Amino acid sequence: MTIRDYIEGIKQGSNRILSKAITLAESQREDHYELALQILEAFPNTGRSRRIGITGTPGAGKSTFINTFGQHLLRNDPNCKIAVLSIDPSSSISGGSILGDKTRMGDLSKSERVYIRPSASGTHYGGLARSTRLAILLCEAAGYDYILVESVGVGQGETEISQLTDLFLLILNPGGGDELQGIKRGIVEMADILVVNKADEDRLQIARQTAKDYQSAQTLMPETESGWKPKVVMCSSLNGNGLEEVDEVIREYFKHIEPDHLHSNRYNQQKYWVFRILEDQFRQQLKKRDLHVDESLNSGQLPERLAQQWSKKFFH
Amino acid sequence: MTIRDYIEGIKQGSNRILSKAITLAESQREDHYELALQILEAFPNTGRSRRIGITGTPGAGKSTFINTFGQHLLRNDPNCKIAVLSIDPSSSISGGSILGDKTRMGDLSKSERVYIRPSASGTHYGGLARSTRLAILLCEAAGYDYILVESVGVGQGETEISQLTDLFLLILNPGGGDELQGIKRGIVEMADILVVNKADEDRLQIARQTAKDYQSAQTLMPETESGWKPKVVMCSSLNGNGLEEVDEVIREYFKHIEPDHLHSNRYNQQKYWVFRILEDQFRQQLKKRDLHVDESLNSGQLPERLAQQWSKKFFH
Repeated sequence: MTIRDYIEGIKQGSNRILSKAITLAESQREDHYELALQILEAFPNTGRSRRIGITGTPGAGKSTFINTFGQHLLRNDPNCKIAVLSIDPSSSISGGSILGDKTRMGDLSKSERVYIRPSASGTHYGGLARSTRLAILLCEAAGYDYILVESVGVGQGETEISQLTDLFLLILNPGGGDELQGIKRGIVEMADILVVNKADEDRLQIARQTAKDYQSAQTLMPETESGWKPKVVMCSSLNGNGLEEVDEVIREYFKHIEPDHLHSNRYNQQKYWVFRILEDQFRQQLKKRDLHVDESLNSGQLPERLAQQWSKKFFH
Repeated sequence: MTIRDYIEGIKQGSNRILSKAITLAESQREDHYELALQILEAFPNTGRSRRIGITGTPGAGKSTFINTFGQHLLRNDPNCKIAVLSIDPSSSISGGSILGDKTRMGDLSKSERVYIRPSASGTHYGGLARSTRLAILLCEAAGYDYILVESVGVGQGETEISQLTDLFLLILNPGGGDELQGIKRGIVEMADILVVNKADEDRLQIARQTAKDYQSAQTLMPETESGWKPKVVMCSSLNGNGLEEVDEVIREYFKHIEPDHLHSNRYNQQKYWVFRILEDQFRQQLKKRDLHVDESLNSGQLPERLAQQWSKKFFH
């Protein structure tokens, strides 16, 4: 396949070719990666999608939420196209194994206006940097209006997702704090929208209380950089209640950031990734040169001394 | 002054010589910095102090709190010594201008067992890395038992303080969220202990309510890495009420982390600083080579392409 084939295929909305292009972006081979960059450079005017990061505690129902919410979006706007990228920083999924996700989001995946793809980001340093960002841009090039970036695993991924998206959405179980074990401190304060999921009929009371509690907690936290006051909404991915409210709050959020903050935020993200990619390569270089942090620190060396020695090898 | 003079002076507890050593650590001159490292290398067994990071909204009364709380510590333990390091990342204080702090912490500064020092960290890249960490170690070498690291400014500093200290204490005004404007989101979730200050007699009710609200909010957040559940305490720096409770919670916290987490936390901090210092130098190198991120990004270049080009200049 030539680069022209990729570009044409993406322009014509072929998901098969989009998938192949994302696989190039995820590849360890430099020539593949280079090809992915060249494909993207043929689409200089991407950036018109809404990039939404979705995370939550294990079992909060992220996939079920995406499945139902995605269908809601499709119904509400008969022209919109949705891409779902799943990231699991803790494991290494092969680029092709989208079967799992297709099952998890069965109904959604049936639509021709939907593209679902797991991202193989756990395999190497800078995985997210090298692949997910490019995957988002490729989906935009292919004309997707909503890019939902879902973090499957728990850990570092969440912080990085906020550097890839415009909106950070946190899915919560009704019931509160006990279920937050294992997720990173800081996530609640990072969220722009908190969705209390599973507000099904038999759990409506507890969901309502949870939403109220998080709403109060939000008033005790500083506002986001754009001046947005994070909102808490309830929904049931089971019976569809509340999906309209989630949709409304998301619109409200974009209305708030679009005049000014959206652009500057994306610009800052680009800067972040320049340095993030270089830092990753820098760390790989340190490893290559057999400079082991642990050994030196364990022998009692000052971090400043260690940095000084390495600095000489690199910068002089 | 020879290196021997510095080492002897610090061993004998001379604050004048300690100050001179910290000035070396803060200096832009490489030979001064080198001397500071050599002085520290003569004290391989530091690390026995309690390093406490203190931050809060402007006007929450950080200095008044440190002033009264410090005196409380001095009374409770007739042998303990306290060092206070103030960091203002947003401004560049000259190394000598400690007058301001002496005024702000008037009573505390009168004690011979107390050392107060602002840190000139705002002047250059990696300021905190190059100076405050070394200042903490120098104070430990001089036998200080408590190192209170106060962030005067608002912004990046807070996140970095958590990489320098064992305990992150957030000072709050009674009244709640409205006063949090301007501080960074994520700070509330980063705190190990939240102190509602100004619980003076006429504001006791509102302080009590604020403490209760923050305590509820805490139950909705994930626990800290060590498994510590952040505590909220009230105190009045004016009449001294609650200082004993603050002291108790701090002891409780150290009791919780000391068996295991304290050591691993400090070790991870050391690793953080190795990379942090190198990253700062790396950014300086980029600047030197006239590689401007902004220009390239504004001309529409992909961050990945930019990183790739720079990477070639450095790593090949």
